[in-house]
Amino acid sequence: MSEKKFTLLKKDPSSRARVGILNTAHGPILTPVFMPVATQGVVKTLDLKDLETVGAEIILSNTYHLYLRPGHEHIRKLGGLHKFTGWDKPILTDSGGFQVYSLANLRKITEEGVEFQSHIDGSYHLFTPELVIEIQEAIGSDIIMPLDECPPAGVTKAYAEKSLQLTLQWAERSKKAHKNETQWLFGIIQGSIYEDLRIRAYEELNKIGFDGYSLGGFSVGEPKNIMWKLVEKLTEIIPEDKPRYLMGMGTPEDLVEGVARGVDMFDCVMPTRNARNGTLFTSTGRLNIRAKTYESDLSPVDKECKCPTCRNYTRAYLRHLFKAEEITVMRLATIHNLYYYLHLIKQMRKAIIEGKFMQFREEFYRKRGEEPPPLS
Amino acid sequence: MSEKKFTLLKKDPSSRARVGILNTAHGPILTPVFMPVATQGVVKTLDLKDLETVGAEIILSNTYHLYLRPGHEHIRKLGGLHKFTGWDKPILTDSGGFQVYSLANLRKITEEGVEFQSHIDGSYHLFTPELVIEIQEAIGSDIIMPLDECPPAGVTKAYAEKSLQLTLQWAERSKKAHKNETQWLFGIIQGSIYEDLRIRAYEELNKIGFDGYSLGGFSVGEPKNIMWKLVEKLTEIIPEDKPRYLMGMGTPEDLVEGVARGVDMFDCVMPTRNARNGTLFTSTGRLNIRAKTYESDLSPVDKECKCPTCRNYTRAYLRHLFKAEEITVMRLATIHNLYYYLHLIKQMRKAIIEGKFMQFREEFYRKRGEEPPPLS
Repeated sequence: MSEKKFTLLKKDPSSRARVGILNTAHGPILTPVFMPVATQGVVKTLDLKDLETVGAEIILSNTYHLYLRPGHEHIRKLGGLHKFTGWDKPILTDSGGFQVYSLANLRKITEEGVEFQSHIDGSYHLFTPELVIEIQEAIGSDIIMPLDECPPAGVTKAYAEKSLQLTLQWAERSKKAHKNETQWLFGIIQGSIYEDLRIRAYEELNKIGFDGYSLGGFSVGEPKNIMWKLVEKLTEIIPEDKPRYLMGMGTPEDLVEGVARGVDMFDCVMPTRNARNGTLFTSTGRLNIRAKTYESDLSPVDKECKCPTCRNYTRAYLRHLFKAEEITVMRLATIHNLYYYLHLIKQMRKAIIEGKFMQFREEFYRKRGEEPPPLS
Repeated sequence: MSEKKFTLLKKDPSSRARVGILNTAHGPILTPVFMPVATQGVVKTLDLKDLETVGAEIILSNTYHLYLRPGHEHIRKLGGLHKFTGWDKPILTDSGGFQVYSLANLRKITEEGVEFQSHIDGSYHLFTPELVIEIQEAIGSDIIMPLDECPPAGVTKAYAEKSLQLTLQWAERSKKAHKNETQWLFGIIQGSIYEDLRIRAYEELNKIGFDGYSLGGFSVGEPKNIMWKLVEKLTEIIPEDKPRYLMGMGTPEDLVEGVARGVDMFDCVMPTRNARNGTLFTSTGRLNIRAKTYESDLSPVDKECKCPTCRNYTRAYLRHLFKAEEITVMRLATIHNLYYYLHLIKQMRKAIIEGKFMQFREEFYRKRGEEPPPLS
């Protein structure tokens, strides 16, 4: 077992961007990192070999889904999620909280925990902070999250404050319940759009003591400029030697802006979910491959891309497969989008190491005919 | 362009099984051969690399589907189906007749041809023997079929005879319309379960002159013993130097029995379609991986199988993916089933070359705890 350790390798001189190395029980990961989402223990449409092809270094699985199916005790019995899936690199699991709020049928939030009905069979369940830690220990993930409450966009400060109070109580109980010392336990910073709540959240979590910090509630739909200001504030006060994880974000632009502000870890369903409906990311922006304009287009999705989809298939053929509703193309599109995201992350790491991150950022926007947004 | 040539390499001394080599404009194929079905220009769930992995030597595409979407003129404009899909090995296309009868919404069969409504948008179309040849020339497939009428199971002899008459008229018109000398044009032998009609069908087609013979109407549901008797009769009278293609069949047992009776070519949706609903073929028989019994089964689908699915995944994990409705597993199952079929074909070729086909057949049934059916 390797020690839990996060080491900075390089800091960009003109931004907060940084490259680090995070050790886990299943090997090290370089940061910044993007984590493909493997909700039910598989990245939708892909297999293990594909994950290698796209360059995945760590995947994210959803505690809520795995708890319901196949069940954490079942996963424990079969040797943990790594053994069950065959994926032997690091895994991060979320707390299940976000899914309970967004997917489950009913809910009641009390101090004890959150009660919900399964979206699969309507059965009743109660997630407590202690159970959520136990589930993630059974799953055997390398980086785990405590149960939190994630307030929706547009809540009042009073609501946000009350919600944060619960999240902090649960954080304390989670820390107490957590016994597996090889797992990284992150604290989740909530507080909606209120800077003072966000700062208090960090300070209280810091007192409890966590291995890293998740910035929660940033993917609920608040305006981007408000969000980036808060991220800047938080990466200013979180100590440099703690990894920072911006949960559930985002677009390629979000990755670039997050990295510029000192974020180390990202996850999002966007590259995989969009792939399945035909939205593809390229060096010059997005395209929807289903559009008539690609009907006879014999060029690859992205001329700059070296993924197997771009090397072997034309836009015309991929469009045909989408129009014909062929499953094959969902995988080919997923491979492309994840390769694009993971390649983007690698390019950023390289640029930081070479001291050229701001140049890279400039160039990234230039290719899509845009100006970089202001950095404070 | 290679010459159209079918050469027998070896004949089994104790059965009609034989190994041959069939030259096409896109390279040679060894027979017996199994052709995975790529209805819309793709084997469902797979990509080109997967086809290589499973050992596909030739694929079958459906004229009916490609004519409707993306359209044969579109395929012609983009350089033919090989260029459009990136598959550079041989392609066989069917005549579209079977799909018109089984998939399209309405139909009227006249001497001129068959009128139908598209299953996609309800538009009206007329397939004539001449158009069907033209479509397949535009597609650029290596082996093509003439339009035929395939009578359903249980028809009277009078019906079968009238239907055969039409198929033979259409065969003659097809032969006349066919200009691309590099494409193999097969004659389709119909005649339902009536031996004299089947023999007459062959004789009339022989007078017209075809490059090979398709045995049609064997997958419509007639009793197997009747069917095998007819196949035996036909492979007795068709000259040895003509390839014989048993259309739309079948199970692994059908492949073994077909080969034993001198069939050279097979196609069927069974390995691919069954894979997508969880039915997997193994050396000891079939299994449905969705069954509860595999919930904690850490063994591979088939211990004897060397496909990537069996090498990398457990039954327990594959079952989980099916229960969780993950698309990934449809591909993993398709890879396994096609690998199984194509490996079975290769094993039979090897056994024939070594003069041990009947031994192989015995062993094939022994592993599934069965006796081989009688061979006349």
